[in-house]
Amino acid sequence: MMGLDCNCETRGPRKVRAFEKVLTDVQREIYVENWRISGEELDIGAESDGWHIDKRRLLGGLSDGVDVVEVNSGRLSFVVVPTRGMGIWKGTFDGCFLGWDSPVKELVHPSYVNLEDRGGLGWLSGFNEWVVRCGLESNGAPGEDLIVDNVGNKKSVRLPLHGRIANTPASEVRAFVGLEPPFELGVRGVVYERSMFGPSLKLSTSITSEIGDNCIKISDVIENVGGVPAEMQLLYHCNYGMPFLENGARLIAPLRRVAPRDRRASEGVEEFDSFGPPQAGFVEQVYFFELLGDGEGRTRVLLTNKDETKATSISFSLRQLPHFTLWKNTASLSDGYVVGLEPATNFPNPRRFERERGRVINLKPRENYAAEVVIAVHLGKEEAQGVKDWIKNLQDAVKPKVFKNPTSEFSPM
Amino acid sequence: MMGLDCNCETRGPRKVRAFEKVLTDVQREIYVENWRISGEELDIGAESDGWHIDKRRLLGGLSDGVDVVEVNSGRLSFVVVPTRGMGIWKGTFDGCFLGWDSPVKELVHPSYVNLEDRGGLGWLSGFNEWVVRCGLESNGAPGEDLIVDNVGNKKSVRLPLHGRIANTPASEVRAFVGLEPPFELGVRGVVYERSMFGPSLKLSTSITSEIGDNCIKISDVIENVGGVPAEMQLLYHCNYGMPFLENGARLIAPLRRVAPRDRRASEGVEEFDSFGPPQAGFVEQVYFFELLGDGEGRTRVLLTNKDETKATSISFSLRQLPHFTLWKNTASLSDGYVVGLEPATNFPNPRRFERERGRVINLKPRENYAAEVVIAVHLGKEEAQGVKDWIKNLQDAVKPKVFKNPTSEFSPM
Amino acid sequence: MMGLDCNCETRGPRKVRAFEKVLTDVQREIYVENWRISGEELDIGAESDGWHIDKRRLLGGLSDGVDVVEVNSGRLSFVVVPTRGMGIWKGTFDGCFLGWDSPVKELVHPSYVNLEDRGGLGWLSGFNEWVVRCGLESNGAPGEDLIVDNVGNKKSVRLPLHGRIANTPASEVRAFVGLEPPFELGVRGVVYERSMFGPSLKLSTSITSEIGDNCIKISDVIENVGGVPAEMQLLYHCNYGMPFLENGARLIAPLRRVAPRDRRASEGVEEFDSFGPPQAGFVEQVYFFELLGDGEGRTRVLLTNKDETKATSISFSLRQLPHFTLWKNTASLSDGYVVGLEPATNFPNPRRFERERGRVINLKPRENYAAEVVIAVHLGKEEAQGVKDWIKNLQDAVKPKVFKNPTSEFSPM
Repeated sequence: MMGLDCNCETRGPRKVRAFEKVLTDVQREIYVENWRISGEELDIGAESDGWHIDKRRLLGGLSDGVDVVEVNSGRLSFVVVPTRGMGIWKGTFDGCFLGWDSPVKELVHPSYVNLEDRGGLGWLSGFNEWVVRCGLESNGAPGEDLIVDNVGNKKSVRLPLHGRIANTPASEVRAFVGLEPPFELGVRGVVYERSMFGPSLKLSTSITSEIGDNCIKISDVIENVGGVPAEMQLLYHCNYGMPFLENGARLIAPLRRVAPRDRRASEGVEEFDSFGPPQAGFVEQVYFFELLGDGEGRTRVLLTNKDETKATSISFSLRQLPHFTLWKNTASLSDGYVVGLEPATNFPNPRRFERERGRVINLKPRENYAAEVVIAVHLGKEEAQGVKDWIKNLQDAVKPKVFKNPTSEFSPM
Repeated sequence: MMGLDCNCETRGPRKVRAFEKVLTDVQREIYVENWRISGEELDIGAESDGWHIDKRRLLGGLSDGVDVVEVNSGRLSFVVVPTRGMGIWKGTFDGCFLGWDSPVKELVHPSYVNLEDRGGLGWLSGFNEWVVRCGLESNGAPGEDLIVDNVGNKKSVRLPLHGRIANTPASEVRAFVGLEPPFELGVRGVVYERSMFGPSLKLSTSITSEIGDNCIKISDVIENVGGVPAEMQLLYHCNYGMPFLENGARLIAPLRRVAPRDRRASEGVEEFDSFGPPQAGFVEQVYFFELLGDGEGRTRVLLTNKDETKATSISFSLRQLPHFTLWKNTASLSDGYVVGLEPATNFPNPRRFERERGRVINLKPRENYAAEVVIAVHLGKEEAQGVKDWIKNLQDAVKPKVFKNPTSEFSPM
Repeated sequence: MMGLDCNCETRGPRKVRAFEKVLTDVQREIYVENWRISGEELDIGAESDGWHIDKRRLLGGLSDGVDVVEVNSGRLSFVVVPTRGMGIWKGTFDGCFLGWDSPVKELVHPSYVNLEDRGGLGWLSGFNEWVVRCGLESNGAPGEDLIVDNVGNKKSVRLPLHGRIANTPASEVRAFVGLEPPFELGVRGVVYERSMFGPSLKLSTSITSEIGDNCIKISDVIENVGGVPAEMQLLYHCNYGMPFLENGARLIAPLRRVAPRDRRASEGVEEFDSFGPPQAGFVEQVYFFELLGDGEGRTRVLLTNKDETKATSISFSLRQLPHFTLWKNTASLSDGYVVGLEPATNFPNPRRFERERGRVINLKPRENYAAEVVIAVHLGKEEAQGVKDWIKNLQDAVKPKVFKNPTSEFSPM
């Protein structure tokens, strides 16, 4: 068992009594503009009573019309953004900031994001979330690929960076509060990525935290609700700036193989797992990982600051998310000093390349694909020790292979 | 005379006293978010009192900010969508659903539709209406064509599928209720498709139904409000799924000539006028028609289910809408099991091709173009008999020519 | 000193007591939908009490969600549009209309403007302002240029016409009312043009008028808030139709050199400074100017109607805005009968060309660039005389050079 310091993984799918509030249901024409619940309105009997859920509609500027749901489970709080595909904007744990400081400060309404902009890089004009899904029809770098058009012909189109899901609003949003232990708080949502003669993918997500806990669980199911087979890609872009990222911060992960994405990444391959200070003009370095898992395919990665007093881990199953990418972007503070930890179904290369490498999911009609990611925060040196030990235990059995140069198995040459 | 079962055609332009409510007038800064009127508020003296008009602003998801006006004239109801170019989302007649079940379920706000997407196919991500206009500067398949830019130069651009009008909100919207027989209910609206150095086309539409009647009349006038001549294209994409469409459903129309659009359509040319069951992966088949009209150029087409108990007809003038397209897309229910009946000024080929064939309207400054479409619903076997007889009468005099293969007069080879 | 008839230039940066109201602050989640203040609510002791500031959110049609702030300082009123980058829609002075009558009548929300549309000309579908900034990352004609992508590679993209700032909503908006002489009224705003791996430009603007005055002052500071050097372009597109523009209207400006942009402009170079009547199908003529300035680099241009009873002038510094463009577009009234006076950091050619000519601003991190434009209105023949004299005085010393043909220094051949 891993995650001794986090109860999240031990939850089963057992049903507990819960209070539920529908915040959006487009089909039923339900929409709640502003809403709040806390221990003052609802006594759930939990020891901690500092919890609340707060739903707001932002107004003005680039955020005009953006819905946010803030969940505060006592020590941990996070902001889910239904309007931006149920991503997680930012959070705090015991006052410690979770997320990063993007040059894009405000939440950006999708109507201001033209994905085709800047040669397919328009996604970047709205990119500032702590956790953002990339997908679902495709993710990764922009690139030419073939789609089937309405006439049944193959048509070459340029797929935009990281796909559409993060700029697609949820059709259904519900807040819920568990009325029995473990007193789970959270938001559920459904986001459709669909078009006539296009994808018909349904994302059902549940984003939860337990009262008083240090972790957040993202449980997703992607279903092909169309009548023909469909491709699917899913990547969790989990981004951290200070205080977890700093000069001397490190990534600790159970490694089988590591490959630099390109020549730029090769330059830093000796220190791929450590991070430097903010550096103006730093050009991103990206590393592709094959991780080790336990007998059930579970794995965990840890990002820790220099003195290991502030750490965060991500747990997931390699059976669901077999590929992991590290995005090092230690640019200046004003340009986005950030590291991305990215468990995924694929590496974020152009989809055509990933398809050739067998790293694109195919879903039959009505078939679905589940993925779960648990993010925990570990403040204090002792807190992360369990995770470190767990990773070390896996690593002890295997000597990692680190490629010095880009490798055709991992990235286009 | 045709349409004995429908009073719609007999209406003249005579003025009757009417109650009118301005719902939107952008220039005058009038906007009504929610509004409703019915026989309870306004006794118009009609026999039927089950009528109402209900204006709502949808909130949340992809529908956030979409205005809808639901008109219920007793037996018939339909939902006009000012935000989507005064299209008609869906309707019911005596409880029978009018429209189709697109994979795109909710009304999509135009700000979520990027027409340039997917190589000019972005229109499809918002396509789910019962009746949607395609135009006005252009319609049809995406393709390269020339526009005149601000410098007066010809500039090659890629025109997007089916043009912009369906994703352009109305500048003026009025609901009205006739206070004298025939007690007409409806919505009027004005939509501008205009840009500096671009088109200056004004669509004035009136969408009406009489109390207790079985039909809906769409009366449009498109005016070139610019100072230079302009091209115009207009197509009414009228779409039906179940219950009118089913295995064994048929199209009955007075035919002079029928041409398959492409090789795919040639495959099914022997059964061009009959429809099969939902079939996963079915690739659309499109047929172009030259129809017969009466002495005044009026014509009518009928879509009927297998046992002819549920039928719907469209009446229009060949002088206004000389070209008719049949879109057969009997894909699986989840991918859009649908047939489109499309009276138009042109066939939905790329505009450049249509121009070469003389099928693009040219409007001088201040010149306008009127088009009217009447859609009637016929439930019960006897109800459609009058229409069938009328069509048969026209057809008896002419043996239709059905091309086995695509023909350069009709479609690009 | 110039501008004897206008107090605007004499203002210093000295602080006066002022009433201030935050209308939008996205970071602090402040947004005021509707608000108004006038002499009735706030007695500031000025002689004129006909002033007011009126903030509204427009609803419906293409204007849905557009914020406007109308400032009326007594004789002069103008409408600032936070949603469209703090442009100025239109104004009036003593009942005289300021602006032009674009074929696009309503204010267009940026979510309806796809800049990539029509081969990069989408900006034109929302273009109807009196004063609109073009920039900030680039402005001018669309054209291929290189950007740096997220991987640090140069990437060729097509820059859209006139950049993004006019379709980017302000993040901060404040109205203010001076409580001491000169009793200044106005709106301040902050607009960010930024993207991860893209520009990080901050526009801080103050748009003001004094109680009872005839002029409006636009004071802008553009700061590079990113961590790496950035290019910047800024052009003030000041547009006039009737009554200033009419057959026989003229531009009076202190000229050193004038160059036609292209062959079309060459055709009219003999009458570059006079304007004809509305003419259907007129193709724009654009002239690039090198203006004369006084010892401090200040200059002024004057647009006057035929009999010089209605004139408007623009004052600015050649140190800030060294290049000036005249846009003659005397098309029919319905197509936009308009002349544009455009002080700028550059000529509105594709950015690549301007860079080659050294006319693109480079800003280091934290460096900023200030620009100020004062627009005055002169009604009655005597009113403009001071400006005419001031210009004549400068011109007397220099014989202007007027190129007959396009010149490679000014425009691509």
